[in-house]
Amino acid sequence: MIRVVLLGAGNVATHFYSAFYKEKTVEIIQCYNRKNIKLHPDQKEDLIITDLSDLKEADVYILAIHDDAIKEIANLLPFRNKFVVHTSGSVPIDVLGTNNRTGVLYPLQTFTKDTYVDFSTVPFCLEAENSNDLQTLKTLASSLSKKIFEISSAQRGILHVAAVFVNNFVNHMFAIGNDICKEHQVPFEILHPLILETAQKVSLTDPDSIQTGPAVRNDTKTIERHLNILKEKSQKNIYQLLTTAIQDKHGKKL
Amino acid sequence: MIRVVLLGAGNVATHFYSAFYKEKTVEIIQCYNRKNIKLHPDQKEDLIITDLSDLKEADVYILAIHDDAIKEIANLLPFRNKFVVHTSGSVPIDVLGTNNRTGVLYPLQTFTKDTYVDFSTVPFCLEAENSNDLQTLKTLASSLSKKIFEISSAQRGILHVAAVFVNNFVNHMFAIGNDICKEHQVPFEILHPLILETAQKVSLTDPDSIQTGPAVRNDTKTIERHLNILKEKSQKNIYQLLTTAIQDKHGKKL
Repeated sequence: MIRVVLLGAGNVATHFYSAFYKEKTVEIIQCYNRKNIKLHPDQKEDLIITDLSDLKEADVYILAIHDDAIKEIANLLPFRNKFVVHTSGSVPIDVLGTNNRTGVLYPLQTFTKDTYVDFSTVPFCLEAENSNDLQTLKTLASSLSKKIFEISSAQRGILHVAAVFVNNFVNHMFAIGNDICKEHQVPFEILHPLILETAQKVSLTDPDSIQTGPAVRNDTKTIERHLNILKEKSQKNIYQLLTTAIQDKHGKKL
Repeated sequence: MIRVVLLGAGNVATHFYSAFYKEKTVEIIQCYNRKNIKLHPDQKEDLIITDLSDLKEADVYILAIHDDAIKEIANLLPFRNKFVVHTSGSVPIDVLGTNNRTGVLYPLQTFTKDTYVDFSTVPFCLEAENSNDLQTLKTLASSLSKKIFEISSAQRGILHVAAVFVNNFVNHMFAIGNDICKEHQVPFEILHPLILETAQKVSLTDPDSIQTGPAVRNDTKTIERHLNILKEKSQKNIYQLLTTAIQDKHGKKL
């Protein structure tokens, strides 16, 4: 049995509570948040604390709090040499300081408050200073998911950059597609199945091997026609830069 | 019963054959291709023709052939005033000429040869010169899919540009994410669930309302760190242009 104290009351803390609550190998012995917020309807009120000096003995203290607050709360913990982890993708492990043994338990997924999260498909990125603590995190994460990865702080930084491309920038491509359709009274939903298939394919194949479209075909007539249709300068610039990037990348391989 | 002649032997023709073959309301009375290729193991050989002059009387002649061949084959058809359609996303209806009544039956999905296609989720874009013929296409497409859209040639042109953004350019974002991970020995598969969720969300919500990341937060520290990590010039340029585009778009709304 792993005894857990959960600090925070946001999306990650709430989803972690609901998930660990069902696990027999994990016991949430206490929750801390300043506003005395319940993370689950079944949660006993006397297990919620608002004062860090009331923290009980536990195997792991999970700081599921805002990136900017991790350093401050880690410094305020009233004990030494216990196992303290954060859950952030972009904060290095050393922000947790040197008072305690430190680690990271980072579920790489976007969480929305009232949407159920199926943790079994969520990749967990784990990091710990020593191997015993890493084992604790592995046991903890394995109770929720089969996708466990040992990832250093430097590697997490890399994942974060890659995620900007495959999530943030991809979403902006969807936004542009949506804008183009709206402007010309074409229902964007016609493109939904194509969007889904594009995403599904990437789990099966190297993205370079399935690059299609006028850029990789060097279909200059179509490229010109498309650039004439695009009226907004930003859309035109993106179309041109990405067309050139695709051509350079695939030209190099020939 | 709609009597269909299918011209072509590529992916679209093959998938159409398998799909229509099962439908009681559709009868494929003949297939044409120059190499005498069977589109299905059950297909009777005397129903395959290699000479356009052997074409039988049908309700609709479907040219499921390469974009560049549509004009030529349409001109070679040895009859007048019959209903002739093509299946292309990027070719205008008037390429079919004026000898026959013309239309378009465009399934908006990418087809791979040996992969089963579930047409029930594929959006069909229909176009026809006259309303009777449009009704024939609606009946034909409805036998396969519930997603039927009446789309003009001009609108199809718009869909094609939008598809370049949401499919071709998105795939290039995946390729860059993959390259970044590879370069730093981080398994790209960690990002697969995030990629899938990003695509799933777009069917439920306006993409602008769910834009996240350092660009929209104007998190200049993170943006600078990311630009330092990116070594390849093309990746840097794309990061900068898309970051500015996201900031301009979301700044405007404030």
